[in-house]
Amino acid sequence: MRDINQFTVTQAVKNSFKTEPGSRFESLLQGFIDHLHDFTREQNLTQKEWIDILNFLYDCGKISTPERHEFILLSDVLGFSALVDMVNSKGGATEGSNLGPFYLDAAPRKALGADLSDGREGVLVLVKGKVTDTLHNPLPGAIVDTWQADASGTYPIQEQDQGQDKYDLRGVFEADADGRYYYTTVLPKPYTVPYDGPVGKLLRAGNRHAWRAAHLHYIVRAPGMNTITTEVFFENTEYIDNDAVFGVRRSLITKIVPAKPADTEGLELAKTPDAVCNFDFVLAPEG
Amino acid sequence: MRDINQFTVTQAVKNSFKTEPGSRFESLLQGFIDHLHDFTREQNLTQKEWIDILNFLYDCGKISTPERHEFILLSDVLGFSALVDMVNSKGGATEGSNLGPFYLDAAPRKALGADLSDGREGVLVLVKGKVTDTLHNPLPGAIVDTWQADASGTYPIQEQDQGQDKYDLRGVFEADADGRYYYTTVLPKPYTVPYDGPVGKLLRAGNRHAWRAAHLHYIVRAPGMNTITTEVFFENTEYIDNDAVFGVRRSLITKIVPAKPADTEGLELAKTPDAVCNFDFVLAPEG
Repeated sequence: MRDINQFTVTQAVKNSFKTEPGSRFESLLQGFIDHLHDFTREQNLTQKEWIDILNFLYDCGKISTPERHEFILLSDVLGFSALVDMVNSKGGATEGSNLGPFYLDAAPRKALGADLSDGREGVLVLVKGKVTDTLHNPLPGAIVDTWQADASGTYPIQEQDQGQDKYDLRGVFEADADGRYYYTTVLPKPYTVPYDGPVGKLLRAGNRHAWRAAHLHYIVRAPGMNTITTEVFFENTEYIDNDAVFGVRRSLITKIVPAKPADTEGLELAKTPDAVCNFDFVLAPEG
Repeated sequence: MRDINQFTVTQAVKNSFKTEPGSRFESLLQGFIDHLHDFTREQNLTQKEWIDILNFLYDCGKISTPERHEFILLSDVLGFSALVDMVNSKGGATEGSNLGPFYLDAAPRKALGADLSDGREGVLVLVKGKVTDTLHNPLPGAIVDTWQADASGTYPIQEQDQGQDKYDLRGVFEADADGRYYYTTVLPKPYTVPYDGPVGKLLRAGNRHAWRAAHLHYIVRAPGMNTITTEVFFENTEYIDNDAVFGVRRSLITKIVPAKPADTEGLELAKTPDAVCNFDFVLAPEG
């Protein structure tokens, strides 16, 4: 390994790892080394650019905390997270989208028809839909876990120091015998991803904004089915066509319309909604 | 940007950056996005692999300090640093190699012939050579800045808590009228890169060792010439053919032989060496 040059060093590095032949680890490692080295050669990367890149990663590490994962944010704004969601979406099933940083395990169970708004200001919207398999069979008992920002674009978990309950604007629902879920909540507003750190610097350098289109977060699961992590967006709302983290898909956009009596028929609702939107989740079988 | 899929998202991400057309920043950003996305598609990266990668970077950030840059170490063991050195080496000039983490600005000036060993145990070796341009013209007054580990593979800067002076085993020499430099020192020994962190985990997972071949570090500069950062290695020493950071090049290997009277003729030396090695530095003109 003394006769290495810029063309042979890549194989030398790959050979230095003694991984199980044909293993996933080997494939990932070799694929990553190939792309990183190709990038370096293609760009004729200078020493200064090299150290700038490594110092950028160092800075991302320094600002990260258990509550703020700057590398996930970096992945988000580079469309890496979106692409991973896409390559993992199963044909026929609801497309996946960003988990985001605000998911909480063990959010409270709520009865169907419950109101998540808790008296908050904003448009009160009835969110409803069905959970089915890819053959349109309802999935009774499917779990619909949702969380969202409020009408000012803030998650209650971000304002705990102002007396907010971190479990507010969250709920875990169980679909009824027809696979239906429904609840009322306030319409969320757009918000920015954190842009006071290295990723914010990158966005500014690239003349990009930090806004996310308004959305509801969901994790939907049912026995024997692939769990889906996704987001639901609203037609004709801001940033729907330039979401900072590339979370929007056409199939994940719903329409909000004024609520009519027929919309609430047969539903036991804690509050009377101003508006209604429908979104059906489709789960693919495991494996 | 709602009709994105795994094949169109890459261009959408590139379009989201409004960089100066044709700028270096644009080229680097677009090249990086292309490679990262290609990697993701080729590997069909799973969500778990994705978060494992991001958490690995998070862990690298957490262990990093101003004295320990885990991202540089990661770059080193993946051959990224070596490749950057290679693409920046100028034809005809001495090849570049790792700067490493132990360089200190403002190391003390020493007279030619000085002894850096300061009574340390080990083989006392006369290191000498010439600094020339690519046409073999000597470069009088060229600056040869060197630093190294001791005969146990440790840099004095690592043992300051044991009373060592961080400037020990370092020297900044000025080449004489013939472009010659010479000094005595102890022969350094191999040592390991830090492997108690995430990069160490990666090395173990890939069944790789953490040893560096023994080496002397150099930064060599002269007015109007490209500065060279490199390392000099010794023939027939351990790890010379499997250095953990891919620093060795055939052109950077010197031989150590017993010192004969002719070797020290005309040199004013503070100590009488056991052995001698020769290494000439060749600098290319700037630009």
